[in-house]
Amino acid sequence: METNRYSFSNASYLAISGGVGGAKLALGLSQLLDEKLSIVANTGDDFNHFGLKVCPDLDTLMYTLANINDKKRGWGLENETWNFLEAMKALGQESWFQLGDRDLATHITRTNLLDRGMSLSEVTTKLGKQLEIKSLIFPMSDQDVTTKVCLKKGEWIPFQDYFVKQQCKPEVEAFRFDGISQSKPSPALEACLDDPSLKGIFICPSNPFVSIDPILSIPGLIKRLKEHSAPVIAVSPIIGGQAIKGPTAKIMKEFNIPQSALSVAKHYGSLLDGYIIDNEDAHLKDQCLSLGVKVHATNTMMKTLADKISLASECLTFSKEVIGASK
Amino acid sequence: METNRYSFSNASYLAISGGVGGAKLALGLSQLLDEKLSIVANTGDDFNHFGLKVCPDLDTLMYTLANINDKKRGWGLENETWNFLEAMKALGQESWFQLGDRDLATHITRTNLLDRGMSLSEVTTKLGKQLEIKSLIFPMSDQDVTTKVCLKKGEWIPFQDYFVKQQCKPEVEAFRFDGISQSKPSPALEACLDDPSLKGIFICPSNPFVSIDPILSIPGLIKRLKEHSAPVIAVSPIIGGQAIKGPTAKIMKEFNIPQSALSVAKHYGSLLDGYIIDNEDAHLKDQCLSLGVKVHATNTMMKTLADKISLASECLTFSKEVIGASK
Repeated sequence: METNRYSFSNASYLAISGGVGGAKLALGLSQLLDEKLSIVANTGDDFNHFGLKVCPDLDTLMYTLANINDKKRGWGLENETWNFLEAMKALGQESWFQLGDRDLATHITRTNLLDRGMSLSEVTTKLGKQLEIKSLIFPMSDQDVTTKVCLKKGEWIPFQDYFVKQQCKPEVEAFRFDGISQSKPSPALEACLDDPSLKGIFICPSNPFVSIDPILSIPGLIKRLKEHSAPVIAVSPIIGGQAIKGPTAKIMKEFNIPQSALSVAKHYGSLLDGYIIDNEDAHLKDQCLSLGVKVHATNTMMKTLADKISLASECLTFSKEVIGASK
Repeated sequence: METNRYSFSNASYLAISGGVGGAKLALGLSQLLDEKLSIVANTGDDFNHFGLKVCPDLDTLMYTLANINDKKRGWGLENETWNFLEAMKALGQESWFQLGDRDLATHITRTNLLDRGMSLSEVTTKLGKQLEIKSLIFPMSDQDVTTKVCLKKGEWIPFQDYFVKQQCKPEVEAFRFDGISQSKPSPALEACLDDPSLKGIFICPSNPFVSIDPILSIPGLIKRLKEHSAPVIAVSPIIGGQAIKGPTAKIMKEFNIPQSALSVAKHYGSLLDGYIIDNEDAHLKDQCLSLGVKVHATNTMMKTLADKISLASECLTFSKEVIGASK
């Protein structure tokens, strides 16, 4: 992988991320920060499939940072094959969730280690080390939290049923995170929250409702993030009213929220010290500023690795400006 | 698959089988008998690998009778790929047991269904139906029985450690079948044992010590087989002092037993009503007869499907002769 080192590696940073969209910025940050970057992943999407523990966001982050992700398809592993899934169909098993042959190694190893008594944090650290990922990726919690989706017809369904099986097609009424009230931050997240040397907390451009909200809903977390000396800076997942990928804009519409970067800033509210929007949304800058948040407009569309590193670099620079200005 | 129907399908038969060697005859019998053939498989080789329940003999029988087995390699599935295993290596996991990508579908489905409360018999029936296998394949027992191998140095190791990991290289002192005293015949095996219409019981040319003995060691089984009106007929796994495949002859040597078809007949002892040996071993016929068992010599080397069907046909014919002569 191309590397492009800046001089930010003397301070530690925390990224709060979901899957694909968030992983793009996490990759950029990791290129600049290596082991000085901690990434906390949403685990509300985790589910049990065929008895295997599947953690889509942790896996996407892991595969992306290990540079073994499929760049064209946008999810899963490169050089993936699908013979397991074909054999499952022959055995009359469900095949709506695309479990690749290589990907299975992750789920089987994780499930096996969890069954042997390791925590999800411990398993994730072990897998990350094995894949030689320098940044530390960890789950938001070692307790199970399960995102459920309420459809307009009043039915609550598991997140992956909505997201993968039904391809986000049904209209959404609400989300809830089962188990969240009993959940505690994972040990690594605790360590970040307690780390006075942490210099910036970035909310990656992931879906605010289903990727970031589960993390922020861990009891006490928003308060601790607000009280932390490091600035909390979000990167908008909305550019010109559209989500780059996934159902963020569609959900906003169904929630009767204007589909804009401004709505995301309002959603995070007083948690934010800084907000990065796309140049295309520069006209929203004053409205965002009026929320009491510092704003920076730049290119937030991350197509190439250079785009990712460039946005990450702007995040780091902006975080210093925000500290200088307010904290 | 070539089919070649004889007129045996008006009576029911039971085959007692291990893996590869036994499955050859089981395939031949199934071609002649379809749903009139029941096959009880050794489950002493079963083991837990990465948290998955792997049943090598059940799988070999299932794949062989579904005609999806790899004919060249002699085990596993045809068109198999190994990307899961490669990814496991990258995750630092053990790779001595060759779990193919397609094969995994069986183990994952089985493990998942067992975890949901199905018995191994129920799971095996379900998989067999899904693969459209007409003959009924079932485990010897729904209780766990675990074959252990005692090496000359006095160490007891799991069977797959000996058989696959160490490729049968260590000298063997003894075998034991943990859990056997608490095991009961599976419901389908019970049904066969209680079925007065059963016309023949065939012990397939599998390894007597590690494939057939676990089945015969289920409490009360030998007595019930002896008392059954159907003749018990074994096909020798030894031809000219050699095993076609696997460590049978090597184990005989280590047990100080002459490496011959005669030794196998002696091993099964008074259980046998009939014994089928290879033409090459025809000179042993009188010695076998002196054990009080009817003997038939024919070609027992099964290379082609026609060989398998031909030997199966001889088994059926011989079983009628044995009934006529003694029972």
